[in-house]
Amino acid sequence: MIKIGIVGGTGYTGVELLRLLASHPNAQVEVITSRSEAGVGVAEMYPNLRGHYSNLFFTEPDVALLAACDVVFFATPHGVAHALAGELLDAGTRVIDLSADFRLNNAEEWAEWYGQPHGAPELLKESVYGLPEIAREEIKTARLIAVPGCYPTAVELGLLPLFEKGLVETQGVIADCKTGVSGAGRGAKVPSLFCEAAESIKAYAVGNHRHHPEITQELTKAAGQPVGLTFVPHLLPMIRGIHATLYVRLNTANQGLTDAELQELFEMRYKNEPSVDIMPWNSCPETRSVRGANVCRIGLHRPQGSDLVIVLAVIDNLVKGASGQAIQNMNIMFGQDELAGLTYAGLMP
Amino acid sequence: MIKIGIVGGTGYTGVELLRLLASHPNAQVEVITSRSEAGVGVAEMYPNLRGHYSNLFFTEPDVALLAACDVVFFATPHGVAHALAGELLDAGTRVIDLSADFRLNNAEEWAEWYGQPHGAPELLKESVYGLPEIAREEIKTARLIAVPGCYPTAVELGLLPLFEKGLVETQGVIADCKTGVSGAGRGAKVPSLFCEAAESIKAYAVGNHRHHPEITQELTKAAGQPVGLTFVPHLLPMIRGIHATLYVRLNTANQGLTDAELQELFEMRYKNEPSVDIMPWNSCPETRSVRGANVCRIGLHRPQGSDLVIVLAVIDNLVKGASGQAIQNMNIMFGQDELAGLTYAGLMP
Amino acid sequence: MIKIGIVGGTGYTGVELLRLLASHPNAQVEVITSRSEAGVGVAEMYPNLRGHYSNLFFTEPDVALLAACDVVFFATPHGVAHALAGELLDAGTRVIDLSADFRLNNAEEWAEWYGQPHGAPELLKESVYGLPEIAREEIKTARLIAVPGCYPTAVELGLLPLFEKGLVETQGVIADCKTGVSGAGRGAKVPSLFCEAAESIKAYAVGNHRHHPEITQELTKAAGQPVGLTFVPHLLPMIRGIHATLYVRLNTANQGLTDAELQELFEMRYKNEPSVDIMPWNSCPETRSVRGANVCRIGLHRPQGSDLVIVLAVIDNLVKGASGQAIQNMNIMFGQDELAGLTYAGLMP
Amino acid sequence: MIKIGIVGGTGYTGVELLRLLASHPNAQVEVITSRSEAGVGVAEMYPNLRGHYSNLFFTEPDVALLAACDVVFFATPHGVAHALAGELLDAGTRVIDLSADFRLNNAEEWAEWYGQPHGAPELLKESVYGLPEIAREEIKTARLIAVPGCYPTAVELGLLPLFEKGLVETQGVIADCKTGVSGAGRGAKVPSLFCEAAESIKAYAVGNHRHHPEITQELTKAAGQPVGLTFVPHLLPMIRGIHATLYVRLNTANQGLTDAELQELFEMRYKNEPSVDIMPWNSCPETRSVRGANVCRIGLHRPQGSDLVIVLAVIDNLVKGASGQAIQNMNIMFGQDELAGLTYAGLMP
Repeated sequence: MIKIGIVGGTGYTGVELLRLLASHPNAQVEVITSRSEAGVGVAEMYPNLRGHYSNLFFTEPDVALLAACDVVFFATPHGVAHALAGELLDAGTRVIDLSADFRLNNAEEWAEWYGQPHGAPELLKESVYGLPEIAREEIKTARLIAVPGCYPTAVELGLLPLFEKGLVETQGVIADCKTGVSGAGRGAKVPSLFCEAAESIKAYAVGNHRHHPEITQELTKAAGQPVGLTFVPHLLPMIRGIHATLYVRLNTANQGLTDAELQELFEMRYKNEPSVDIMPWNSCPETRSVRGANVCRIGLHRPQGSDLVIVLAVIDNLVKGASGQAIQNMNIMFGQDELAGLTYAGLMP
Repeated sequence: MIKIGIVGGTGYTGVELLRLLASHPNAQVEVITSRSEAGVGVAEMYPNLRGHYSNLFFTEPDVALLAACDVVFFATPHGVAHALAGELLDAGTRVIDLSADFRLNNAEEWAEWYGQPHGAPELLKESVYGLPEIAREEIKTARLIAVPGCYPTAVELGLLPLFEKGLVETQGVIADCKTGVSGAGRGAKVPSLFCEAAESIKAYAVGNHRHHPEITQELTKAAGQPVGLTFVPHLLPMIRGIHATLYVRLNTANQGLTDAELQELFEMRYKNEPSVDIMPWNSCPETRSVRGANVCRIGLHRPQGSDLVIVLAVIDNLVKGASGQAIQNMNIMFGQDELAGLTYAGLMP
Repeated sequence: MIKIGIVGGTGYTGVELLRLLASHPNAQVEVITSRSEAGVGVAEMYPNLRGHYSNLFFTEPDVALLAACDVVFFATPHGVAHALAGELLDAGTRVIDLSADFRLNNAEEWAEWYGQPHGAPELLKESVYGLPEIAREEIKTARLIAVPGCYPTAVELGLLPLFEKGLVETQGVIADCKTGVSGAGRGAKVPSLFCEAAESIKAYAVGNHRHHPEITQELTKAAGQPVGLTFVPHLLPMIRGIHATLYVRLNTANQGLTDAELQELFEMRYKNEPSVDIMPWNSCPETRSVRGANVCRIGLHRPQGSDLVIVLAVIDNLVKGASGQAIQNMNIMFGQDELAGLTYAGLMP
Repeated sequence: MIKIGIVGGTGYTGVELLRLLASHPNAQVEVITSRSEAGVGVAEMYPNLRGHYSNLFFTEPDVALLAACDVVFFATPHGVAHALAGELLDAGTRVIDLSADFRLNNAEEWAEWYGQPHGAPELLKESVYGLPEIAREEIKTARLIAVPGCYPTAVELGLLPLFEKGLVETQGVIADCKTGVSGAGRGAKVPSLFCEAAESIKAYAVGNHRHHPEITQELTKAAGQPVGLTFVPHLLPMIRGIHATLYVRLNTANQGLTDAELQELFEMRYKNEPSVDIMPWNSCPETRSVRGANVCRIGLHRPQGSDLVIVLAVIDNLVKGASGQAIQNMNIMFGQDELAGLTYAGLMP
């Protein structure tokens, strides 16, 4: 039984960890911390968990208790994992960080995008970017995992096969992305209010979203050369779900590729991936098909047979885009069935 | 491994059966019929099921194939189970009917409410009303189960303890109920369109909803005398969920009951019920806390200490109100863990 | 041209006043105050108003500027109008208060429900409860208007005809009410977040909502004797709209009333009321039919011909339930066409 | 008083015409036809119109009655206006067609996209594409108006200034568009059901949407050379609103343009346009800001100062994208104030 600690369990990624772990056959949440809710039962705060965690209470953060766990998840704002990860690693506890603290490889770049110095640059070298589809082997032995962001998960899974094979132009890539409101977290902010977000759509953070450097970093690694990306996120009136609409051009050498070859490329790339589903050519995946499920579902298009390839990729931002992916990492690290606790089908309707 | 057949699997209760059964450790869907979709793969129609039922296709209804199953679920409009149930029972196959065909004990009453003669009155005597909380023993040996309606499940679970103990007036009961749109099914009807149901609420079928006689029948049995009920359903802009707000008066003999005694009554009544959750006194259950879960969550109120008791009961109409409850019945009939395949926590947020 | 001041214009009732007044033929907003947004243009904060108020900016509250207006609307939390109303009245400016400050006639009762002493009890005697359907004459000459709450508007309009004529039991009245989220205002609170309120319904404040004493006060006046009411509000996943489902019993003397007589009672009572619409017998009004409109739409039911009358009443909580009704009051006070600026049909779909 | 006829008034563009015309100072709906609802009062079908059209009933189509009107709106599926327009024009009645019947200038192209022969090719020469921002003068004297589609209105208004001035590459234009469900009309189709469309997003008709040739035709005219466009529409869980996210590259000759020059270009182009609002540089318009309003609101971006210009354009698909624009055309044709009946601010929240 894997002993689990969770730091910062009152946000949406925290409760989602609890929901998913409740059906994990071989894991047990021992500690869950929250300064603001210390003493409160988790099922008191999250009544959907009633009957599942009757003896689990939020506690003040206590490094000793956390260090007694096999693994600690950080479901915290950025900066918190910086402060605590080192100590836990020293104590032999593995760390899976759902925040952005260890996603960027370069501490200066991190500091620039997050507006504060990086708090643990010495850990960057050993942290592993936890996208199982590119780093399964490193994850197995990693002590510190940076769980990818929600947008990056969808965009990278949608584009990796093309960049890895060098089939597409590395400049002029467009990622037009759409997210549900839960991506903004459980903080009480006016733009996240029902009356502000319902019955409307808007773009936001055009050209300056913090997931931009993360996506660029990973696509650049895959391509072996710098990738130039325009990333435009949009806020939608739904709770969960990310839909990435990705526009990329076949490079001159590969404009002769047939639709069938493109489809096969994706199918082969993800053949053994339990959390990626390539739909038939010309499919339009719906976010609801992955609601609550640890799956990235992908459809491929090439209108009028031109050099423009359109990749549609959907995930549940709280599952494959956060807590589910974190558990997938844990399963890999601890030699579990990779989808233990993650096998449920999407809730549809 | 329980062999399962499903008749009429293209509606919302059909896909929900499939979603839940996908995680059942000891059951296998062998046949699923649909005239309109014969030949189509279930995961083609319901992409949330991709990866789960790769070899299951809708087929034309075929009694021989169905009769080879251990149990057949009817997820059909009323009238269909009437026509087929007898034959299946004769073949030794058990039948769990999610439609209204066997819910009313009286064939004439059924004919009056459904506008057509009852098609199998000879089966009424042996059919069991499948609310495990009142009929677990009969369910164990039943051959034919009438799965309760969604509204009746919420209203009856909310009121049974009071009527069984004779604590409340049997006349003047008010059930003000609110439902999500999925209760209307997957039929293409104008009132179920997004643009008709979103951003609005309305009452409907005031005083003449078909669930009215079902609720009255069951409460009357519990009370041992006729119950007079006013039932007002409302349509809400959400997919899943039923919220029953129940108003009932303590009778003269019992107005001295304390709040604590009322709370204890409910807790004791449902102490061993795995699918009923009594929240602390004065709680207001949210439907989202049971989204996707096979639970009825109940909160009790008594404003100003008057003789009026207010019971708030919530369920997911597609789970405890339909497909989950059907599986709960199956588990009881076949000696399975009662919640096999039904342990998932509600999806929240 | 009526010169208008608005105190506290950054909430939902504030922007709704601006939206409606933009089409008023004979009124001009001169001053709008907001401590937090002083200096900001109203159309900068509310882009729907771009093109309508190009020269209107939020300013720090300044009594002199407000006092130069003909009328000042308070769209503020409770307590603010207490502090400023007297001074404005002394300066000859009329006051229309959308908050709860002057709704209860009894200062002690107000203090009890709002948890602080009443700040201007000396004004209670002259304040007029601004429901035009009962107080049009007093409104004409009033200096200080207490605009009714949203729930009270719907409940009172739905029940007044029955109580005024003494047709129904005054005890045991039930008001099961449903509201959209905008009723909670624009404050950044967790329960008002999209991810908390969407796809769910819950009851709240059962038996202790602040609108309870207001409703009871007004119904008691209409009935000429104390009215006993149970009021259960529910929060729904929609922006605007209140749906009141009202259960009341004909008293012994009046159980012979026919349905047609009841229908006629309501039609006659509201025959000359431009903001109340009695639908045909057995109608189920939808909140969307009044979205953005200054109308209360009412449908009457009497299931099974019993003594129980069910009144369904819907309003837009921000229009007839707040800002629209405030303007209706202003129109009456200043001799305008009562619906000036308020004639727009509901936005449907 | 302009006498108006409406053919096919039971869909969403029909009721929206009625809603808007109810506040028009100088127009009167004389006839509204519907085969399926003949004899029904419009306010019976659309209760939001109660109090506005008490004497207007749907009638069987009758050319003589329609021909007695000054203008007839077609709010019909494609093909209907083909059959009737000629006869009405011969009778001296003007025709404003909200369907696609006269939008494409080439009858063969129309036949190809709509799967049937064009029914009135002889009228194509005189029909005017009713986008006031490009054709106000022709509209004044036109007898037959083709009201632009909803997507085309948003995309064209967003791109026209750039193409008219020859500033951008004419190939590789991307229009990633998002729409509310009302764009699919009031037909009872499964994909438009609440339970199919809520809480989800999907792309659809990638590369083969019928609005594609319309957009290309108009942009090509503006550019004076063929425009190559990729158009990807997405269906969102909201009733009203279109959000166009437009990606276009400055051509070699114009990459030195400053942001301020781009902003000024748009401001000058639309300076005298009452239904186009250019927001400040880097603004993200929300669809809710135009809910119910006849406005296209536009924001401009150029991330990292590159040659890629991003235009964000929002409209209410039922107003500026259909019925409002139709009335704007009528106002121009009949010498009315161009925004008569169209001045209301967007409903927000």
